[in-house]
Amino acid sequence: MMSEQILKGLRDRDPRGIARAISLVEENDPQADEILSSLDDSLVDQATVLGITGPPGAGKSTLTDRIISNYRLQGKRVGVIAVDPSSPLSGGAILGDRIRMMGHALDQDVVVRSMAARGRLGGLCAAAGAAVRILAGSGCSVIIIETVGVGQSEMDIIRLADITALVLAPGLGDDIQAMKAGLLEVADLLIVNKADCAGAETLAMDMESIAREGGEKGNENAKVYTTVASEGKGIEDLIAGIETVDASHRKSGERRTRRDKAYDLEVLDWAIEMIKPSIIEKIKNSGTERKGDPRLQAVKLLEQK
Amino acid sequence: MMSEQILKGLRDRDPRGIARAISLVEENDPQADEILSSLDDSLVDQATVLGITGPPGAGKSTLTDRIISNYRLQGKRVGVIAVDPSSPLSGGAILGDRIRMMGHALDQDVVVRSMAARGRLGGLCAAAGAAVRILAGSGCSVIIIETVGVGQSEMDIIRLADITALVLAPGLGDDIQAMKAGLLEVADLLIVNKADCAGAETLAMDMESIAREGGEKGNENAKVYTTVASEGKGIEDLIAGIETVDASHRKSGERRTRRDKAYDLEVLDWAIEMIKPSIIEKIKNSGTERKGDPRLQAVKLLEQK
Repeated sequence: MMSEQILKGLRDRDPRGIARAISLVEENDPQADEILSSLDDSLVDQATVLGITGPPGAGKSTLTDRIISNYRLQGKRVGVIAVDPSSPLSGGAILGDRIRMMGHALDQDVVVRSMAARGRLGGLCAAAGAAVRILAGSGCSVIIIETVGVGQSEMDIIRLADITALVLAPGLGDDIQAMKAGLLEVADLLIVNKADCAGAETLAMDMESIAREGGEKGNENAKVYTTVASEGKGIEDLIAGIETVDASHRKSGERRTRRDKAYDLEVLDWAIEMIKPSIIEKIKNSGTERKGDPRLQAVKLLEQK
Repeated sequence: MMSEQILKGLRDRDPRGIARAISLVEENDPQADEILSSLDDSLVDQATVLGITGPPGAGKSTLTDRIISNYRLQGKRVGVIAVDPSSPLSGGAILGDRIRMMGHALDQDVVVRSMAARGRLGGLCAAAGAAVRILAGSGCSVIIIETVGVGQSEMDIIRLADITALVLAPGLGDDIQAMKAGLLEVADLLIVNKADCAGAETLAMDMESIAREGGEKGNENAKVYTTVASEGKGIEDLIAGIETVDASHRKSGERRTRRDKAYDLEVLDWAIEMIKPSIIEKIKNSGTERKGDPRLQAVKLLEQK
């Protein structure tokens, strides 16, 4: 059986077997159930899921690369889910930044998975959630979800993380300053990367004051870290900070709360994924004139049983 | 009747009435059907929907502002749908950039609508589609959809446009260069904004060569325009270019093809929106243990009738 081979690959922690398993689940293959139910739930429960988000140009990939190296030195096996801002038409993953992670390409204990939006309505959250489970279930004790901090589905993905770090850098323009406000709310750690560039100090002070305000505008417990990822500066402090937040969340129950919310979100996203093909089929077969209100067409379509 | 008042507001082209109508449809209010079916379909058919997309920092809002001014000089009524990369938690619209459009705040013939992602899974496309219909139906002959060119739902929204312009600017970093590839495919016009900045010429040449390659990598018909939106430079050429593409699409049938695809996408998105509350209800009532594979939970949930 093909499935048996994949299950063996997962047990053996073979990156190719893991990649195949994630693909099958992503494609909603009939073997998905068997793959997912074969996983060791206690490994999934114990793993730390770290979200790294921030606008383009903040240096997320370089920082992720450094964080991976640090965890590898600690002997931890690391999974990475890179959610690409790629085209809905090409469905292709972007290589540019990923190449920086190639330093780990020969390391069997670093499993990198690119995940493109592929123009699907929803489903990204379900697929990413499944990838987290497969990576954790095949022995990754740290799973990093790297995503550009813009976009609806991309923000939903961040809810899958136990801990979220927001990466900003000086000099990225007005739009990014505006975006900050929203992203600050979901962040447990705030990172000013490219801290050797002009404007870094102002940005760090700015973030610190927003974080201090707490409440709706920010997370009052969020601490600001400065890094120069390209030179590896500030990474150790950052890792220590991540570990402090992780320990505190495990103790307070915050981790459980987030996991529960993420679980419900995944169930919802899967359910929608499963219903969608039948709706698309109905649209195809309805021979709609494509005139008038699409909302009313949807109502009519759902009334057909 | 409240609804009668809204319908009158739409007929009178009163911005406040239009805003109220869009809100009701967005909230899936029972009055939505009446509002949408009251619209003049021929106005919706005739309007031009222009998508303006590009990464943060490219100057989309400033450019949109200039485009609005130009259309206003032509005596056209303009609608703007600004899709904000705002937080899923706050649900708030970002004011920073919008403020630049305030030059039109007292102009009754410019109707600006901000639309936040609000953490909903899907639904953004349905809501934006309805807003396009309402704006067109209340006399806007040009509707501009401004969206950051990253993110799954945000890219789906671009499919609602008849014509898409991609805005880039020099010096926005590696990530943005990578993003280009995907965005180029959906663009009918390529704009290098901030053309007075260093690197603009190289960027323009780069985009021209990618566009020329055509096929999967780009749109061979796409032309590159250079602008300095902050000074109003290059806007007239750009508007002429938009009109050329529009005329060509109307003649070739491309416009009809895109509208048909957009229509189906809207029907699908509405249908999902309508099904979702019952799934969420089921998740709430299922008293799930939140253990094991969320995919399997979704299957179980859907089996309940």
